[in-house]
Amino acid sequence: MDLAPLPASLPETVPFTGPETLERMQGFPFRARLGANESTFGPSPLAIKAMEQAARDVWMYGDPEGHDLKATIAARHGVTSDHIAVGEGIDGLLGLTCRLILAPGDAVVTSEGAYPTFNFHVAGFGGTLHKVPYQADYEDPEALLAKAHETRARMIYLANPDNPMGSQLAPQIIEAMAQNLPPHCLLVLDEAYGDLATLPLPQIDPHHPQVIRFRTLSKAHGLAGLRVGYAITNPALARAFDRIRNHFALGRIAQAGAIAALQDTAWLTQVQDKIRHARQSLTRIAERNGLKPQPSSTNFVTIDCGRDAAYARAILTGLQAQGIFIRMPGVAPLNRCIRISLADDATLDILAEALPRVLRSL
Amino acid sequence: MDLAPLPASLPETVPFTGPETLERMQGFPFRARLGANESTFGPSPLAIKAMEQAARDVWMYGDPEGHDLKATIAARHGVTSDHIAVGEGIDGLLGLTCRLILAPGDAVVTSEGAYPTFNFHVAGFGGTLHKVPYQADYEDPEALLAKAHETRARMIYLANPDNPMGSQLAPQIIEAMAQNLPPHCLLVLDEAYGDLATLPLPQIDPHHPQVIRFRTLSKAHGLAGLRVGYAITNPALARAFDRIRNHFALGRIAQAGAIAALQDTAWLTQVQDKIRHARQSLTRIAERNGLKPQPSSTNFVTIDCGRDAAYARAILTGLQAQGIFIRMPGVAPLNRCIRISLADDATLDILAEALPRVLRSL
Repeated sequence: MDLAPLPASLPETVPFTGPETLERMQGFPFRARLGANESTFGPSPLAIKAMEQAARDVWMYGDPEGHDLKATIAARHGVTSDHIAVGEGIDGLLGLTCRLILAPGDAVVTSEGAYPTFNFHVAGFGGTLHKVPYQADYEDPEALLAKAHETRARMIYLANPDNPMGSQLAPQIIEAMAQNLPPHCLLVLDEAYGDLATLPLPQIDPHHPQVIRFRTLSKAHGLAGLRVGYAITNPALARAFDRIRNHFALGRIAQAGAIAALQDTAWLTQVQDKIRHARQSLTRIAERNGLKPQPSSTNFVTIDCGRDAAYARAILTGLQAQGIFIRMPGVAPLNRCIRISLADDATLDILAEALPRVLRSL
Repeated sequence: MDLAPLPASLPETVPFTGPETLERMQGFPFRARLGANESTFGPSPLAIKAMEQAARDVWMYGDPEGHDLKATIAARHGVTSDHIAVGEGIDGLLGLTCRLILAPGDAVVTSEGAYPTFNFHVAGFGGTLHKVPYQADYEDPEALLAKAHETRARMIYLANPDNPMGSQLAPQIIEAMAQNLPPHCLLVLDEAYGDLATLPLPQIDPHHPQVIRFRTLSKAHGLAGLRVGYAITNPALARAFDRIRNHFALGRIAQAGAIAALQDTAWLTQVQDKIRHARQSLTRIAERNGLKPQPSSTNFVTIDCGRDAAYARAILTGLQAQGIFIRMPGVAPLNRCIRISLADDATLDILAEALPRVLRSL
């Protein structure tokens, strides 16, 4: 069957290879799953209970308006529900956002080495990507803005805290950026790791016509496999998702689990404490092995291995052979690093035991 | 924020208003939920157990390849996994299919009164809908084919068994249709109700270049709120979904629940028996009240109320005031009917008790 011209031009890419695929290829399961920034601390027990209860009611569709979930999110952020859109993870919402904003050929600006799934969606709707380099392992707001003005971009993508580097920009920098956007340009602010930030997040008027912020339940809330993300933006843009979204996509278990997780703020605080502890542990493991851990505002630590991409890749491959799943940035100069998710002590102990052996073997 | 021209031209439609929205408007909950063709018989207890187990592991993303789920589906249908695509319900897959096939302005053929969510996705990707009337409450394959030839359509949509009428075409009719498609035209065969059919389903070579069949876990398997659907088609088209899909969209609970549900064939047989029993019960309820139930090959019965759309609408509204949620077809002449989901005896008893009162009040 011949495809339409745009999809016919796309590769059959997968932005990320899942650990299950690697397990099938290598023929044994991972002992430590530290590559996808999942939370070994798990979701709130109240969320598990809510999902179990919802499993009994799952013969019913979920509320296509996501009314109660949006109300819970809105209350958390001090806005009204009409500022909120919900969807199948930030990934799903990024796809819908690209579809809403981009006509084929439209320019989009991001950083060289930033989130590949965003690039996948831009290409998927015919946008043209323009990339600026990271500046000393931070995304570079001035370069992003300059490139956006130069290319008359319709979107700028910025993850803050950043993935894959774990760095965070000061709130004032993002606030200034929001005030200096080119006309017709949307600032796509990916705050997937916002719950784990070490600096305050920027204060941006939720009525700002050109900013959309994304949050997820996949990271601090430990619900990666549930697929719930949300956007905070002005009401007109939030409502625009209704034009194109899959209205029943957020199922009954997903909505119930997300609501319970968001309401259990005590659990979130505990996870934040555990993440701080794990950051110190992982930092020490890296340093003990002569590697250079970067400051982290996320649930992973990016570790500079001090040499080239081939060396970082060899460490990754060596750890994988030891049953430890990690990932690394995809482009230079970031790919001198490896990226390891934070986890409980038992899981990090597996890494601590294997890493020296892998390094000695190289 | 100005949207791209295509989404800017779309209305903020919702293809279906959910029962939760109606409950919020009317201020009380439904006693009987008989409008969305959900299964009050619920999912397999083994599926519930699998979902509960997966809820504990939900801190991990689901397998982005859906490897085990695809293998389970493939085994059920006697094909290999490369014929299968999985997604967030048939709704999600219909959207992706439109995106793969349609360029703006491309013609698409469907029946006047057929599934509105398909039309929503066609419009969403700029397709032009051409509609042919039902023929005596059946979709009309000859008219669909003729219109597709006339308009050089890229897609024909056909639900078999049909929603909203519950009718089913003989397998030979669909098989003949698949042999007489215009070039470049994809037959989108929506078999959401295939597990509840009263006639055999058509036999179509799974390598057929121009046919894609859709199945869902939402109906007979009682997992509407889980959001799992799948496509059976030729490997090239199945693989094409990888170009554009949200790779992590099928979460861990969704995959685990769907696999367990598909494996519990004994439960499916029980549900099919219960559906046959409920069909007889609902048929009798309609006949006792002087209404004309149509033959059903689905998990609902469409009931001809014998007068015009206003009368059918009045019955629907009257039942709603009694706490009973049903739906009705959207266009003439189908909208002389109401559509009521099959359910357990206790739920149908609520209907049996309320319906005569509603009819007397009109």
